[in-house]
Amino acid sequence: MPTSLDTSAAASRDGRHARPGGPVSPTRSRLTPLDAAEIRLVDGFWSERQRLNADVILRHCEEWMERIGWTSNLDRAASGEEGWEHAGIEFVDSEIHKLLEGMAWELGRPVDADDPAAVAAHVDLADRFARLVSRVAAAQDPDGYLHTSFGRPWQRPRYSDLEWGHELYSMGHLIQAGVAAHRTGTSDELVGVVTRVADHLWEAFGPDGRVAVCGHPEVEVALVELGRALEEPRYVELARLFVERRGHGLLGQIEYGAEYFQDDVPVRDADVLRGHAVRALYLAAGALDVAVETGDAELADAVRRQWEETVRARTYVTGGMGSHHQDEAFGADFELPPDRAYAETCAGIASNMLSWRLLLQDDDPRYADLIERTLLNTVLASPREDGRAFFYTNTLHQRTPGTAPDEDEVNARALASLRAPWFEVSCCPTNVARTLASMELTFATRSPDGVQIHQLGSYDVDTVLEDGTPVALSVRSGYPYAGDVSVAFREDTGREVELAVRIPAWARTATLTEPGGSPLEVRGRRALVHRRFRAGDEVRLDLPMAARFVIPDPRIDAVRGQVAVERGPLVLALESTDVPSGQVGDVAVDTGSAPALTERGARVRLSRTVADVADWPYGHGVDRVDRVEPLGEVDLVPYASWANRGPSTMRVWIPVAAGRS
Amino acid sequence: MPTSLDTSAAASRDGRHARPGGPVSPTRSRLTPLDAAEIRLVDGFWSERQRLNADVILRHCEEWMERIGWTSNLDRAASGEEGWEHAGIEFVDSEIHKLLEGMAWELGRPVDADDPAAVAAHVDLADRFARLVSRVAAAQDPDGYLHTSFGRPWQRPRYSDLEWGHELYSMGHLIQAGVAAHRTGTSDELVGVVTRVADHLWEAFGPDGRVAVCGHPEVEVALVELGRALEEPRYVELARLFVERRGHGLLGQIEYGAEYFQDDVPVRDADVLRGHAVRALYLAAGALDVAVETGDAELADAVRRQWEETVRARTYVTGGMGSHHQDEAFGADFELPPDRAYAETCAGIASNMLSWRLLLQDDDPRYADLIERTLLNTVLASPREDGRAFFYTNTLHQRTPGTAPDEDEVNARALASLRAPWFEVSCCPTNVARTLASMELTFATRSPDGVQIHQLGSYDVDTVLEDGTPVALSVRSGYPYAGDVSVAFREDTGREVELAVRIPAWARTATLTEPGGSPLEVRGRRALVHRRFRAGDEVRLDLPMAARFVIPDPRIDAVRGQVAVERGPLVLALESTDVPSGQVGDVAVDTGSAPALTERGARVRLSRTVADVADWPYGHGVDRVDRVEPLGEVDLVPYASWANRGPSTMRVWIPVAAGRS
Repeated sequence: MPTSLDTSAAASRDGRHARPGGPVSPTRSRLTPLDAAEIRLVDGFWSERQRLNADVILRHCEEWMERIGWTSNLDRAASGEEGWEHAGIEFVDSEIHKLLEGMAWELGRPVDADDPAAVAAHVDLADRFARLVSRVAAAQDPDGYLHTSFGRPWQRPRYSDLEWGHELYSMGHLIQAGVAAHRTGTSDELVGVVTRVADHLWEAFGPDGRVAVCGHPEVEVALVELGRALEEPRYVELARLFVERRGHGLLGQIEYGAEYFQDDVPVRDADVLRGHAVRALYLAAGALDVAVETGDAELADAVRRQWEETVRARTYVTGGMGSHHQDEAFGADFELPPDRAYAETCAGIASNMLSWRLLLQDDDPRYADLIERTLLNTVLASPREDGRAFFYTNTLHQRTPGTAPDEDEVNARALASLRAPWFEVSCCPTNVARTLASMELTFATRSPDGVQIHQLGSYDVDTVLEDGTPVALSVRSGYPYAGDVSVAFREDTGREVELAVRIPAWARTATLTEPGGSPLEVRGRRALVHRRFRAGDEVRLDLPMAARFVIPDPRIDAVRGQVAVERGPLVLALESTDVPSGQVGDVAVDTGSAPALTERGARVRLSRTVADVADWPYGHGVDRVDRVEPLGEVDLVPYASWANRGPSTMRVWIPVAAGRS
Repeated sequence: MPTSLDTSAAASRDGRHARPGGPVSPTRSRLTPLDAAEIRLVDGFWSERQRLNADVILRHCEEWMERIGWTSNLDRAASGEEGWEHAGIEFVDSEIHKLLEGMAWELGRPVDADDPAAVAAHVDLADRFARLVSRVAAAQDPDGYLHTSFGRPWQRPRYSDLEWGHELYSMGHLIQAGVAAHRTGTSDELVGVVTRVADHLWEAFGPDGRVAVCGHPEVEVALVELGRALEEPRYVELARLFVERRGHGLLGQIEYGAEYFQDDVPVRDADVLRGHAVRALYLAAGALDVAVETGDAELADAVRRQWEETVRARTYVTGGMGSHHQDEAFGADFELPPDRAYAETCAGIASNMLSWRLLLQDDDPRYADLIERTLLNTVLASPREDGRAFFYTNTLHQRTPGTAPDEDEVNARALASLRAPWFEVSCCPTNVARTLASMELTFATRSPDGVQIHQLGSYDVDTVLEDGTPVALSVRSGYPYAGDVSVAFREDTGREVELAVRIPAWARTATLTEPGGSPLEVRGRRALVHRRFRAGDEVRLDLPMAARFVIPDPRIDAVRGQVAVERGPLVLALESTDVPSGQVGDVAVDTGSAPALTERGARVRLSRTVADVADWPYGHGVDRVDRVEPLGEVDLVPYASWANRGPSTMRVWIPVAAGRS
């Protein structure tokens, strides 16, 4: 059994944290999150990805930021040196902070003391983390302000560019790292730093400070969480002020309009998410946090409504959000072109931050459904299989093969290339890192009555209900590729508890086998088992893993007459690599029979439409005589895995062959 | 009859210009352009728009640039004052230059000396023009360099930012204004200024100068044309150098890649236009000019090939070019989403600059077809009916009604508003101004054999063929709304000449009536009449004006299952203003019978698809039961006229009602 390792970092884990949990731990909620001591991934799909993060991605981010001087900004700020030139754009500090958060969650996981390699890796990470924390701490101004690109005599004054400066945004990410350090007990020093940051912000922007907001929301979620962690109501109050101030035109005019940073409409009055997707989603998450802590039901309902509307009309089938390249923004309702779908990786992460908060409040499986969809089909699409390159945007239709990027160069946004190692604005890799490091903390929850299994996979839960009832269970599943789910209890619960397992929306039905019982078909959104579980009891859920054609709402004009193929929770993609003609631009799919399952994807029957050659692509009906050629059976791959086999073209939506609809 | 007015400006029209014509006058070409003394619009569709330009748009541009300090930059540069702050972005000089060009073409038009109002307007414009020319002249550096945002001690050094500085681009526009002044004989001062500019550029970038190019092509067309006008081979040679240097990575790396400014592939090797649309089109036009003047058939063929490919796969049905907002760029082949189609007004103008040059070389009606389409459906879509506001981009699908812009504020790009009065980058209004002022110069040409009528409308031609044969004819047409075309000869041609009238591609067939003959159906791309025309002879061409459904190439995925409606040369649009439900997001059109003509548009039968309410827009086939409600007959309007009746939503592509395809 893994046990918590007594290293210098872990040693500071002294139980002072009043409310443990993962990145989010609300004071009031239907469901209670688990912390790293309560839920642990075991070998399988998810653990492979978390291990890749621990072994490769965290270090990749650290090395890139060292190499191009982003971490040196901290040292130069600390040195008091004059006139040094800041490396990178204004808000590169935030990438360091997100990396720190990822390191803290990774360090907070119990380590198997009998595994020397794991112990060595943990000690190494703890050491790197502690050194990076010290460099951040050294860059803090005496009054608590911490940002390397503003405020020195040769730099722009502090808070002189709230529209674009990202100062509060960056400090927000630092605070989130501090919360992770606090919840995992991994760095008192970092907790001290972020407490001073938050106290500074209270002075600068609190009730007696400047009435302003940051152009990029983020500090709101951070302040609420620090308030929860340290039981400090001022931080929650400051977040509340930021949420309430927004939407009243406090920010200056910018090209994209006030909508871009959600300064157009007060949060509680808005009906849908709009503007810059990451900004909109971070803000909504922060607003919900504020609503929960202040008991503001109207504000919480506004966020629920915005989620509903955004999911109904502004979300890609992959869970991706944001249609526009220019401003990384949501489009209008049903403006969801797969061509150059922006679907920023960070927006997927932000969407899950919001859905997770809503799930904790409402226990509605729809939130877990969207988390599943977004995690599997947007967030996990970002890192390359080797963890050393990332997609910034996640298009649903690649018309020209991306080029192989230079592995030693900072990329713009990998728009014309395959996944790239690092970006000028490199928000996505570090956001992926902190997400992979903590994702299992959103997989299951507890309530006074029992345990809820939201995400399917292989992990162990060891928790204790409010009344002291122990729940120790092992979830095992071949998910997302297979539909088998086993939940085996390792201890006697001593009393009747409720085990709730989400039945994914795609499944519609499942076969439930209770301990000692016979398989029984269950419908609805949850498989519920109430009983006193004893050690060795196993609950089995079998989901009808199959591939299926998905048709879009007719108002999404851009994909009219096309279908996507889903396989269980995975959205599949047609990659030119798998098409005999090497092209995906002229194909059509026969929807007459369901797609056949392959090991990880599905197989469909394709044809190719050879368009009558024309010198102008718009004709009268009589002009064109297109020819159809069969292409045979072709394999589709999980969308998230595309572009791992060299340059290719790709499409998620496939035209339906003539005669089918 | 109008006669050339002897004003102070027009007085300098001394016939010294070796090769008259409009903006383009190649040394070698199949067709010879006419100048303002040879072709004149008369009352009708085109003259109304040209008059709006003369009466409103030119002054609107002038007043805005005066008001926000763009013209003052010139005065401050001239004053020698130190440290003044430049108003507007780097290249606002170019807007002044384009305005000058528009003024020059407008001034160059003969004025009816018997019309006191016309004379007064002409004198007023001549005065404004002369004063603006003097202000530009005063800002010129002694060595000929002329740019207000580089080169002074407190500014960045000259040519220190070729990627984005737009210095040669701006001077290119100034040179084009100088060519207009030269061809119309309206300002020796301006001709002198641009000669010094061109001589400076020869020194700076010629054979003994710096081997570099400007990030924004434009100077190439300008230099060739000045070389033609002044018979100065050095200018053509410098343009040739700029064209040849491009595509070899001389420009620095930028976020959008070298493709953005066509520095990725040498012009003669490229197969299609790509990157920033205006840049690509200006460059192609300049390359063709160079090819013509140097007899470089390979280069000319490269440009032809690029035009073909771009028209085949990268052009909107409106003639608009450029699919991307972020970089104002062409997309991949068939990446033509109507949602946020960029289709910049300036790209439409640039496309016509290229097509016009190709038409002069090849006499292929396809070039005139595209000019017609682009002029009527993109360029003319930009100005508001009152000439005081403009579209910068020309989307084919507006999902949310634009707001009414502040008529006193500089707008970003009118992305969220109706047409706006002025822009931060205000390239489009001045480009529209210079285009409307000179557009009739592309309507007809002459050759040794006769006269070619390319664009249909109402205008008079008075020209003389190479051998002295006079051709005086009056074209009259209700075009673009009606299909009647009359060509009446006013003088005896004395010998057999050829009259060629383009039969637009949309017509496919026409009825030709020769003088004294019977109506005869003609096919092909031209109606040709060979005869000795006598005064009073009339040739009639009747085009089958009708509305029709147009279906897109199946590779344009974004409009699959949809049709556009064209009426003669006009692309029509469905505007919510005309739909009983006030919505265009849920409509479908019955394609069972052809659209009926209305006065300027067409009428179709619409239905409305009421989508089964869903909380997630992607379903299995069995889920959705959509309901169809008839909406009755609904009028479509010319696309170019949309958004002149207040905020509305709009679509060019309309889904085909179920059961039709």
